[in-house]
Amino acid sequence: MTDHPLEAPRLHVGAILKAIEDRRMTAVDAIEAARRRIAAGDSEIGAFVCLAEDDARQSTEAPLAGISIGVKDIFDTHDMPTEMGSPLYEGHRPRFDAALVAMARSAGATIIGKTVTTELASIDPKDTRNPVAPGHTPGGSSSGSAAAVAAGFVAAAFGSQTGGSVIRPASFCGIAGFKPSFRLLPTVGMKTFSWSLDTAGLFAASVADLALLAERITGRPLTSLSAADANGLKIGLYRAKVDDHLDHEMTEAIGAAARLLERAGARIVDLAEPAALSEGRDSHRTIQGFEAARALMHEHVSGGDRLGPKLRAILDEGATVEPDAYDGARRCARLARKAATSLFETVDALLVPSASGPPPAGLASTGDPTMAKLWTLTGNPVVNVPGLTTSAGLPLGVSIVTRFGRDWEALTIADRLERLIQADRGRPSE
Amino acid sequence: MTDHPLEAPRLHVGAILKAIEDRRMTAVDAIEAARRRIAAGDSEIGAFVCLAEDDARQSTEAPLAGISIGVKDIFDTHDMPTEMGSPLYEGHRPRFDAALVAMARSAGATIIGKTVTTELASIDPKDTRNPVAPGHTPGGSSSGSAAAVAAGFVAAAFGSQTGGSVIRPASFCGIAGFKPSFRLLPTVGMKTFSWSLDTAGLFAASVADLALLAERITGRPLTSLSAADANGLKIGLYRAKVDDHLDHEMTEAIGAAARLLERAGARIVDLAEPAALSEGRDSHRTIQGFEAARALMHEHVSGGDRLGPKLRAILDEGATVEPDAYDGARRCARLARKAATSLFETVDALLVPSASGPPPAGLASTGDPTMAKLWTLTGNPVVNVPGLTTSAGLPLGVSIVTRFGRDWEALTIADRLERLIQADRGRPSE
Repeated sequence: MTDHPLEAPRLHVGAILKAIEDRRMTAVDAIEAARRRIAAGDSEIGAFVCLAEDDARQSTEAPLAGISIGVKDIFDTHDMPTEMGSPLYEGHRPRFDAALVAMARSAGATIIGKTVTTELASIDPKDTRNPVAPGHTPGGSSSGSAAAVAAGFVAAAFGSQTGGSVIRPASFCGIAGFKPSFRLLPTVGMKTFSWSLDTAGLFAASVADLALLAERITGRPLTSLSAADANGLKIGLYRAKVDDHLDHEMTEAIGAAARLLERAGARIVDLAEPAALSEGRDSHRTIQGFEAARALMHEHVSGGDRLGPKLRAILDEGATVEPDAYDGARRCARLARKAATSLFETVDALLVPSASGPPPAGLASTGDPTMAKLWTLTGNPVVNVPGLTTSAGLPLGVSIVTRFGRDWEALTIADRLERLIQADRGRPSE
Repeated sequence: MTDHPLEAPRLHVGAILKAIEDRRMTAVDAIEAARRRIAAGDSEIGAFVCLAEDDARQSTEAPLAGISIGVKDIFDTHDMPTEMGSPLYEGHRPRFDAALVAMARSAGATIIGKTVTTELASIDPKDTRNPVAPGHTPGGSSSGSAAAVAAGFVAAAFGSQTGGSVIRPASFCGIAGFKPSFRLLPTVGMKTFSWSLDTAGLFAASVADLALLAERITGRPLTSLSAADANGLKIGLYRAKVDDHLDHEMTEAIGAAARLLERAGARIVDLAEPAALSEGRDSHRTIQGFEAARALMHEHVSGGDRLGPKLRAILDEGATVEPDAYDGARRCARLARKAATSLFETVDALLVPSASGPPPAGLASTGDPTMAKLWTLTGNPVVNVPGLTTSAGLPLGVSIVTRFGRDWEALTIADRLERLIQADRGRPSE
């Protein structure tokens, strides 16, 4: 780590809070640094759609004072437009902050700007660039949030995931990403795509930063819980029905992560995907489509050609799903949740690929959500661990999944794995 | 029933649709009648905060053409302000319709206006009058919606329930009310108070009207399902821990309803409340408070004295609830849901009081939600059946509760009970 947290390539929540606590800098210094970095670099990256006015009221006492946060532009903010990445919401100004935004502000964080989202958090790509893999997609739908953290512009960012929209961009941009247990973070004031799937999530430079951020926003103990070592942990190497989608380098990354954990004392066991979970994954499309076609019915009906073609196709298809098919899919999802809980009777955590491979070249697609969407459906906590790469240096994220409600455990094990990866690569956290 | 549906004291969904189908009138006639009734009577009642512009595009073909709907002013509407009953939202204009509003419009219904809600659907009373019990509260928080149907202004209305805000005003205003299974009707675009409790609901003149309305909005089969008779039904007379709150006339109303069902061939069995359900009811306050303090954090922080005192007290208390206490309450709620499901292994439906008694005199309180809130927490479908009264003629609603997801069964049994009550009182539906 560089000596001063404001000189490091990325802004780390932990290092910033420590430096402020030690009076090596002020909260105002930290926020100004973030603003300078954005001013200097965002024309290259395109992570932000809007920046907040500089308000000088920086308390140094509050638990997140000095922490700059970029907020995906589907969360309401009272002081900036919330345009949902859609021409239908151009200039839209909510009156009050979304719950998560209000919680972050009340903890003293600075909402520094709104980040690029694909239209209504769907899959039509925008032109945000991937800071660590030029010429490759940063992933979506939380494209700008992941890019803003990866570029070192902000210490943290808010995103959302209905399929894989937090875990995939975190993987593609080589940063830590956290999709908490369903509804651990409130989604009030966040635009709905699918009410049984939409999950608010967080990005930060490292897993330890994520845990600290989540702890201080929610008031829940999510750090310092036996972070110690991997000794005695039982990790399931989850063999999914869709593993044939995997790029061979992702398969190798999972193998490498497993070996690191094993060397550190964990027991690795193979776990074949139960049928209920394969079927759960298959039900995702029906649930998402049915709910999106209702949640966005007025936008769909009145927006017409102004909506992106991929989004329109999802809504068109969703409008044809009958209640019977939806109810059947929800039954599948319920069984999948039960099956997911059972998995953790034999292992502490699962190790799974965050995406099918490295970020695809070009900006024509935000990538494939297949790998992450099962755990969105089941609601289990997932943490993307950065640090592994392809031979060409493209990021390959791997995820730690734990039992529903055991978010601290997912963060703790993911933190351990991140440190093992860094030690193996002969370098500490950057 | 009067010969022509537009001459009856109340507008009935079924009678209107039938008359349009039979070409005895047009959809335009039906909507104009509703507008005339509001113009003539709402200065007395105060059910509406805003009326829609008359748009002449009335299709007679659509499944709900001719049906006038009043919408609680916490549902977004693109063509009218959505002021949430709060000075904080004065003049607020959403860009798009809430999901339920869009669904109703897409089925051909006319959203005729926005109805009075208590502030942010909480409990500080407004001044809507009770059309059937002058000088008594219409209940809340869906005060205007219940009053608009009871006064005969509209064929139907939308409301929401976090404690008892659909079932109680329906009971107090002597109309039919439907709190469906949790999330049967989407809450997207409806202001959130408590995300695990908020439930969108419907009001209509009779239970049969409710079923028809709900069927045509959702595309689910909710009518014509063995409506036949009570023969062979097993109905649980639910003895709740809070029954000492009950007014003696409500206890008598429940007894009268039970006797009518029994005479029609149902078997009535006493059912003592399981401890898990009493504890579930007790957990409601913790869950509601914790979630409301987060969902409305920005309004709470910035609204200060502009918020009503009762709402502010709920938010102040909710802000002190720790995550541990909330998690404990959610575990109670989960156990209560399981216990509720078990109840229906021995009975088809429960018969419960909709409120603790008739509408209290005056407008200083919207009444007590204790009776209804348990079923909001468990998510079971509940239908308020009107028709019984105190000796002084004040309305006493009784509710039919069925298993989660069996909304058709709740509507069917409630419809049967309503007809028995009407037959007993020697009069058909008015």
